[in-house]
Amino acid sequence: MTNRRVSKPVYVGDVKVGGDAPITVQSMTKTDTRDVAATVAQIKGLEELGCDIIRSAVPDMEAAKALGAIKRQINIPLIADIHFHYQLALEALNQGIDCLRLNPGNIRDPERVKEVVLAAKERDVPIRIGVNFGSLPPVGGIGQTRGFSRLFDMVNRLPKAGHAAEGEYSIVDHMVATALWEISLLEELDFDLIKISLKAFDVPTTVEAYERLAKMVPYPLHLGITEAGTVQSGSIRTAVGLGHLLYQGIGDTIRVSLSGDSKEEVTAGYDILKSLNLREKGVTLVACPSCGRADIDVVKLANEVDALVKSLDTTIKVAVMGCEVNGPGESKDADIGIAGGNGRAIIFRKGVKTKVVPEAEMLTALMAEIQAIMAEQEAEGTTASAS
Amino acid sequence: MTNRRVSKPVYVGDVKVGGDAPITVQSMTKTDTRDVAATVAQIKGLEELGCDIIRSAVPDMEAAKALGAIKRQINIPLIADIHFHYQLALEALNQGIDCLRLNPGNIRDPERVKEVVLAAKERDVPIRIGVNFGSLPPVGGIGQTRGFSRLFDMVNRLPKAGHAAEGEYSIVDHMVATALWEISLLEELDFDLIKISLKAFDVPTTVEAYERLAKMVPYPLHLGITEAGTVQSGSIRTAVGLGHLLYQGIGDTIRVSLSGDSKEEVTAGYDILKSLNLREKGVTLVACPSCGRADIDVVKLANEVDALVKSLDTTIKVAVMGCEVNGPGESKDADIGIAGGNGRAIIFRKGVKTKVVPEAEMLTALMAEIQAIMAEQEAEGTTASAS
Repeated sequence: MTNRRVSKPVYVGDVKVGGDAPITVQSMTKTDTRDVAATVAQIKGLEELGCDIIRSAVPDMEAAKALGAIKRQINIPLIADIHFHYQLALEALNQGIDCLRLNPGNIRDPERVKEVVLAAKERDVPIRIGVNFGSLPPVGGIGQTRGFSRLFDMVNRLPKAGHAAEGEYSIVDHMVATALWEISLLEELDFDLIKISLKAFDVPTTVEAYERLAKMVPYPLHLGITEAGTVQSGSIRTAVGLGHLLYQGIGDTIRVSLSGDSKEEVTAGYDILKSLNLREKGVTLVACPSCGRADIDVVKLANEVDALVKSLDTTIKVAVMGCEVNGPGESKDADIGIAGGNGRAIIFRKGVKTKVVPEAEMLTALMAEIQAIMAEQEAEGTTASAS
Repeated sequence: MTNRRVSKPVYVGDVKVGGDAPITVQSMTKTDTRDVAATVAQIKGLEELGCDIIRSAVPDMEAAKALGAIKRQINIPLIADIHFHYQLALEALNQGIDCLRLNPGNIRDPERVKEVVLAAKERDVPIRIGVNFGSLPPVGGIGQTRGFSRLFDMVNRLPKAGHAAEGEYSIVDHMVATALWEISLLEELDFDLIKISLKAFDVPTTVEAYERLAKMVPYPLHLGITEAGTVQSGSIRTAVGLGHLLYQGIGDTIRVSLSGDSKEEVTAGYDILKSLNLREKGVTLVACPSCGRADIDVVKLANEVDALVKSLDTTIKVAVMGCEVNGPGESKDADIGIAGGNGRAIIFRKGVKTKVVPEAEMLTALMAEIQAIMAEQEAEGTTASAS
């Protein structure tokens, strides 16, 4: 893996984003933000799963005014997601939120942009500029207004990708130029508490946009694939895109956008980071997919173990294997493992057999061994928890 | 994305793997291979989902003898997965299988290796060498036997990674050297119908091994992450690893190993390839994750649409959005979309509104529009199906 890109960190509440800080996992509430109790309850559930930062949409003034009450009842930083309306941004800041997600270019009037930015600056509240494929400002022939004509200049000054003719620009050019333009609106107000995202549904488009911007600005990058889909296909699409960027050292905080429970977003976020050893969180399950060689139902066993270990406060690696002969060797890097067959199961630690139990007792025996490891770790003070 | 690595293709039955062939999706049966009826039924279910190639484990002679009967009842190529036993490999070839997955180094006796390889060569049946982190042959001080001493030489001749001292080798060195050694055992018998895999549970280990071998040999690569886990976390882990390789043009055929139904493996395989526009398969769903701005239950709607479009034989892109104002623009590259709010829903094509319907009718109206698009495509002869 490539060394991590060094970004200029910002603080979202007490959570550092960028620099050498752990890559954080974000999610967004799906409740009506005006319903304080429902929103707080949802956030509490996400906190338990290790969600580092939460964001809530602020569609109107009633939602903006609810933010303070929400913030007082939760333990993680709160980001207000605002489109267009500078009054909502000012009210969100008044309510004590920890970060704004706001595209200054959408506010249009330079005086209003200034008002919001100065209010954020006064409170040391960062702003995440969220460029999205689907809502890019116009470039090209239009460009009448002050901001947009500068965007037009910017997109035309960008180094051209190989396929683009003179005067042409790709969607990636457009996204990158929009980000640079939005950034310039903040920088000229001497504001640099900036995070940036550049999301599209298309993975290569998203990846290319982040790769290009990563070399051009010092700010932390918030990674995501927009409208990625339902839990299973959306997680895969996001894992491919974010995984490729993270492998190259690009990315400081992530959100997996799923049409599903926000809890799935947090779990998927950690699964992506865990697969690249960038964060530890809970048990990591190594599980044999089963085949015609297995003589126990290893898929069933793996899913039973998964359900039992999900909530354990330990970061050990547990293996569930279908084959007594190859299982221990094939999962020799697991802290603890089980391999079954012929009515019995062997339990092994780091590939070495420690116990043989009847098949009927294997789940109980495995859980007892896991508890024993956790007790050993606690005694040694090595219990690790990433949340 | 990087241009695809050019590999020397092989044919698994009538399916081309490598070269300019589409990247294929494989799975493995989880039935007892000796149970022909159950195995055939499972394979038929996978064929329907677009599985390109299927593999079955062959633990004993009875399983080997069942392969012919299985093969005669299915429509996709069959690979026999064999460990150690050369007699099983010979019988599998007799039964007419389309490819062997076999590590020649495990057979040990050079005469027996020769017998298997000549039998495969006679029938133009390729061999996939499957190197796995968990079952690497010994290197180093041992190295007595002919094959292993050569492996020892090979691992020591490999260019060292930066962190390795003289005489030391990493797990990646060990995997790559093992693959080179296994390849040499086939090449010296003048056999080159070779595919290779280099699987580990750890993503950076797997990626590094494939990246190195990809530059050293001309053979097609079968990508996978071994024992990746249950459906959700295993899919994410595999998507991160395989996605990063595929983005770099590495990989000719893939298998997602999941502790779950094999159907999940095929679906996940396609989801990975679709996210990089490497294969088309079925409807692609763009779906808003919902937030405090949505005034319909967009998560529920997205999942309902997902269930309804899953089996459609079309590769159109369908968007389900929570917001009437931003929805059509944000998913303007979707062929068809729906965005609801305030008791009604709008239906749009390529970002342009075509219809407004009451909320109660939105699902029916969307499906009618999708059927209309499919009929248009059929009339134009543009229906695409990837399986």
